[in-house]
Amino acid sequence: MQNTILLINCIDQKGLIFNITKILYENNLNIVGMKEYVDEQNSEFFVRIEFTGSSNLPEMKNALASILPNGAIIRVNTNQKKSIVIYATKEHHCLSDIIIRNYFGELNAEIKCVVANHNDLKNIVTKFNIPFYFVSHENKSKDIFEKELMEVTVQYEADYIILAKFMRILSPNFINAFEHKIINIHHSFLPAFIGANPYRQAFERGVKLIGATAHFVTNNLDEGPIITQKTNNVDHSFSIQEMSRSGKEIERMVLAEALQNVFEDRVFVTGNKTVIFK
Amino acid sequence: MQNTILLINCIDQKGLIFNITKILYENNLNIVGMKEYVDEQNSEFFVRIEFTGSSNLPEMKNALASILPNGAIIRVNTNQKKSIVIYATKEHHCLSDIIIRNYFGELNAEIKCVVANHNDLKNIVTKFNIPFYFVSHENKSKDIFEKELMEVTVQYEADYIILAKFMRILSPNFINAFEHKIINIHHSFLPAFIGANPYRQAFERGVKLIGATAHFVTNNLDEGPIITQKTNNVDHSFSIQEMSRSGKEIERMVLAEALQNVFEDRVFVTGNKTVIFK
Amino acid sequence: MQNTILLINCIDQKGLIFNITKILYENNLNIVGMKEYVDEQNSEFFVRIEFTGSSNLPEMKNALASILPNGAIIRVNTNQKKSIVIYATKEHHCLSDIIIRNYFGELNAEIKCVVANHNDLKNIVTKFNIPFYFVSHENKSKDIFEKELMEVTVQYEADYIILAKFMRILSPNFINAFEHKIINIHHSFLPAFIGANPYRQAFERGVKLIGATAHFVTNNLDEGPIITQKTNNVDHSFSIQEMSRSGKEIERMVLAEALQNVFEDRVFVTGNKTVIFK
Amino acid sequence: MQNTILLINCIDQKGLIFNITKILYENNLNIVGMKEYVDEQNSEFFVRIEFTGSSNLPEMKNALASILPNGAIIRVNTNQKKSIVIYATKEHHCLSDIIIRNYFGELNAEIKCVVANHNDLKNIVTKFNIPFYFVSHENKSKDIFEKELMEVTVQYEADYIILAKFMRILSPNFINAFEHKIINIHHSFLPAFIGANPYRQAFERGVKLIGATAHFVTNNLDEGPIITQKTNNVDHSFSIQEMSRSGKEIERMVLAEALQNVFEDRVFVTGNKTVIFK
Repeated sequence: MQNTILLINCIDQKGLIFNITKILYENNLNIVGMKEYVDEQNSEFFVRIEFTGSSNLPEMKNALASILPNGAIIRVNTNQKKSIVIYATKEHHCLSDIIIRNYFGELNAEIKCVVANHNDLKNIVTKFNIPFYFVSHENKSKDIFEKELMEVTVQYEADYIILAKFMRILSPNFINAFEHKIINIHHSFLPAFIGANPYRQAFERGVKLIGATAHFVTNNLDEGPIITQKTNNVDHSFSIQEMSRSGKEIERMVLAEALQNVFEDRVFVTGNKTVIFK
Repeated sequence: MQNTILLINCIDQKGLIFNITKILYENNLNIVGMKEYVDEQNSEFFVRIEFTGSSNLPEMKNALASILPNGAIIRVNTNQKKSIVIYATKEHHCLSDIIIRNYFGELNAEIKCVVANHNDLKNIVTKFNIPFYFVSHENKSKDIFEKELMEVTVQYEADYIILAKFMRILSPNFINAFEHKIINIHHSFLPAFIGANPYRQAFERGVKLIGATAHFVTNNLDEGPIITQKTNNVDHSFSIQEMSRSGKEIERMVLAEALQNVFEDRVFVTGNKTVIFK
Repeated sequence: MQNTILLINCIDQKGLIFNITKILYENNLNIVGMKEYVDEQNSEFFVRIEFTGSSNLPEMKNALASILPNGAIIRVNTNQKKSIVIYATKEHHCLSDIIIRNYFGELNAEIKCVVANHNDLKNIVTKFNIPFYFVSHENKSKDIFEKELMEVTVQYEADYIILAKFMRILSPNFINAFEHKIINIHHSFLPAFIGANPYRQAFERGVKLIGATAHFVTNNLDEGPIITQKTNNVDHSFSIQEMSRSGKEIERMVLAEALQNVFEDRVFVTGNKTVIFK
Repeated sequence: MQNTILLINCIDQKGLIFNITKILYENNLNIVGMKEYVDEQNSEFFVRIEFTGSSNLPEMKNALASILPNGAIIRVNTNQKKSIVIYATKEHHCLSDIIIRNYFGELNAEIKCVVANHNDLKNIVTKFNIPFYFVSHENKSKDIFEKELMEVTVQYEADYIILAKFMRILSPNFINAFEHKIINIHHSFLPAFIGANPYRQAFERGVKLIGATAHFVTNNLDEGPIITQKTNNVDHSFSIQEMSRSGKEIERMVLAEALQNVFEDRVFVTGNKTVIFK
C-alpha cells in the first residue's frame, strides 16, 4: 500500500499539530513522515504529512476543515501521477531529459503532449509516441499565437505546463489562466541576469559562476516564486558558447529537481516564495 | 525569551506525535519548530521540538515519560552553552577557528581549556586567556599519558571533548569514559583513507576530490558515527602539500558545522549513525 | 577551419617548450591554447597544444620526434570523432544520457553499437537506430561470455569501450586487450566502497555524502586511473533506494564529464593516475 | 631556492611563446610551470611562468621587452610577501581570518595595519600586535573622512588595501589613487543584489542560494572585476539572520581564496574582468 500525502497551509495558531494529529490518530492512520514550518513573520503554518492506513479520506478532510482556521488549504493526494504539457522551442536538453525520465517511469508524471514553436524537436518527441504540436509564432499576433497554444493545451487538462526552454514570453492573460501551474527554467541564478541572453550578460560581466533557476511563472518576467537554483564554476577561459554548454548541464539538473519536488507534492507557493519539504 | 529544545528518541508506535504535542498543548507551550524522523528499518522514533512559553519543565518531562514507550530518552535544554575541552597537537587551523568563534560568542559553547601534546599552540591559546595544558606523550606509556590527559580533563566536567587535529590515538578505556562525548575531525572523506597520512594516500591514488569527516569517536578507529562530511575538487597538479592546504580549509568548515549542530542540540546518535535535524 | 590538438608526454628536460614551440613556429602554426604540466616527482613532462594553420602534420611530427627525448609519446588529432562501443546491463540512466548526446551530435564520438547481458535496454537503443547485441552471461563460462563480447566488439574497431553500468567483472585477459581504452563508472567516491553494493555499504556506514567515479579499467577492480569524481549530500533520512536514486544523477554527470574530457583529447594516463587539461 | 614568477600581458601575435621561452632558455632558466591564455575576442595574450635558476633578472626583463609588442606589461616577482592595509567596520569574521592566517605565516602577505570606523575590533587586532587606527566617519564630510583614511594608509606604502567588511562607500577620487589595489568582499553573488542589505534582498526574493563575491574596487559600486565567487544553499526556513550567518562562512572563504590568488601573483586585471591562473 502506498503512502498518502496530506498538505495543510493556514494561519498559525497554538495547538495546530496536536489537533491535526489527533484527527489522524482517531482515523487510525499512522504518520510515517512529517515536516512542519511556521513563517513567524507572516504567522503562516505549513505541514506535509505522509501517512499509511486506509480511511474515508473526504470525511477526514472535513474533520480537518472543521478544526482548522478559516481559509485553510487542505490537499490530500494518494500519490497519483501528475499530467503535464511541455512547451519547447529548439533546445533539446531539458525536454530530452524529461522524456527519458517519463519513458522509464521515473517522473511521477505523465507527459500528455509537447507543443513547440519550431519543428526541430519533433523527431525526438514522436520517437517516444508522445503527441507533438507545432504552433508557430510567426506571422501572427501574440494573441493569436497564445489562443492556438491554449487550444492545444486545454484539451489535456494538465496539472502543470513545463516551459522546457520555451523562448517566447507569455502574456499576463495566458499566465493568469494557469496560476501556479506553469514552471519555467531560466538560465541564470536569478535575480542576476533577468531577461534575454543571460550567458552573454554573464560573459560580459566576467562572473566566476553561472547558474540556473526553476520557478513558477507569474506576470513579472523571471520574478515568480523560485523552486530550485544551482551554480557551476566558470573562469576567464570560457567563451559564451562554453558558458552555455556548461549551463545546459545545470539547467537540466535544476529543472529535474524542481519537477521531482513539485510532482511529489513537496512544494507550497506562498506570496512570491516557495516552501519546500524535501 | 529564548526557545526551549525538546529531544525525544524511543521505539516507534502509533500516536506518538499526537500524544507528545498533547502534553505541550496542555502545558500551554507553543511549538515554533518541529522535525521528526522514523527509522522504519529499526522502528525507532526521533523528534526535535522547539517551543516557547514557560512551564514546569521537570513536571512536563515526567508527563512525557509516562506516555512514551519504556526506554524513551527525553532531553530538555533551555539553550545553555555547552562546555568543551579541546585536544590539539601542532596544527592550528581547527583550533584557531574554534577559539575565534568562542571569543566572539558565536559557538554556543565555552572553551574550558586546551590540552596539547606539543607546545606549538600555547601562544595562540593563552593570547585569548584560555588555560593551556602541555601534556607530552613522550617517554611514557600510553596509560600514563592518558591518565595525565584525564586528570586535566575531568576537573572541567566538560560536555564534549573536541579533537581538533589531535594526532594521538586514544585507547578504548579512555573513549569509554566519554561515550558520544568525543568529536574528531578526520582528514579524509571516510571510509576512504582510514588511518595515517590520508593526503599521502589520496595523492598516491590519484583522486580528483579530497574531503574531511567530523565524527563521534568510538573504539574502532575512524569508524564512529559520522556527523558532517564535505569534499573539494583537486587535480593532477596538486602536490601532497597542496592537497593538505586545500584539505585544511575543508577540515575547518566540516568541524565548525558539526560543532554547531551538536551544540545546538540537533544531533542524535543511534547505533553507528547520526540523525541530524538541521 | 578547426583546431588541431597536439599531445606530448615525455621525460622532462630543460628547453622542451622552447624547442616544441620553435617547430610549430617554423611550420607557420598559431598556438591558440597551451597547457603544460611537469610531474617533478617522476620527471615527466605533459603538454596539450591547440593550434590553427595548415601544415604537413606527419612531417611536423617527425620534426618533433627528432628533438624530443627517447620514448616521447606524440599524438596529433584533427578533432575527428572517437568511435565507441557501450556495454550495459539493466540500468538505463548512463546509457540514455550518452544516446541522447550522441543523437544531438554533442558527444564528439559516435556510438557504434550497444552490447548488453540483458534485454531490458533493447528498446531505447534500437529506437535510435543503434545496433543492439544481446550477449547473455548465463549458462556459460566467463571465457565463453568474454569471447562472445569480444567477437561483437572487435568488428567495430572502436577507440573506447564504455561500461555504462555494466555489472559484470571483466577478466585480466579481456582488459589487457584494450589497455586504457575501457572506461567504467563506479557508484562510489573511490576508494571508498570498492566492490559490490556501494549504496548498501554507504547506507550501513551512515555517510553524509555519496559519490561516483569514472575511471579507466585495469586488472585491479575499481583501482584504475581516476578521470572524474563528484559527491552529493545525503542525510539520515535517505533509504538505500533514495541514495541510489540520488547517486544515479551523479553517476550520469560524472560519466558525461569524463567522456567529454577523453573524447576531446584532454586526458593522459600516467601510471595509475590521469593528467587532465580542462 | 624559491621559484620566480614571470607575468606577461600584451597584444597577441604569432610566436610569442616561442620567443619568450627562447629568452628563458638562453638565460639558463628552467620552466617548472606555465599557464597561458589568449583572449581571442580582444587579441590579448596572458602568460604566467614559474621558473627556477638564477639570472640577471633586470637584463632578462629588458630582453623580453625588446621582443614583445609595444605596451607589453612584464612583471617579475621573486615571491616576496605583499604588504597590506585592512579596512574594517564592526564585523570580525573576514578580519579575524586574515589575522590568523597572517599570524601563522600562511598569507603570503604582511598586515601593516588595520583601520576601522568603529572601535569594536580594536581588541582582536591589538592582541596580535598589529597597529589599529580608529578613524570615525561621524560628524565630518566624506572628504575629511577619506583624507584621514589616506593619511594613515599612505605611510605604509601597501601593495593592497583589503576591505574586510568595510561598510563605507569610497569616492572615485580615493579609488583612483589605488587603481586595482583595493579588494572588496561583497555579500552576494554579484550582479545579484547590488548595494545595501543583500541578505534582506535575498530573503525577500526567496532565493534558494546565497553567495559572496570578492572583487577589485572601481568607481562603479559593486561593479569591479570579479576575482572569486561562491554560493551556499538556503531554503524557506532561513531567516535573514540565518542567511547572514551562513553567508559569513562563504564571505570568509571567498575573500581568503581571492587574496591567496592575488598574493601569489596569479591574477591579471583586463578591462572589467580578471584572468586567473590557479
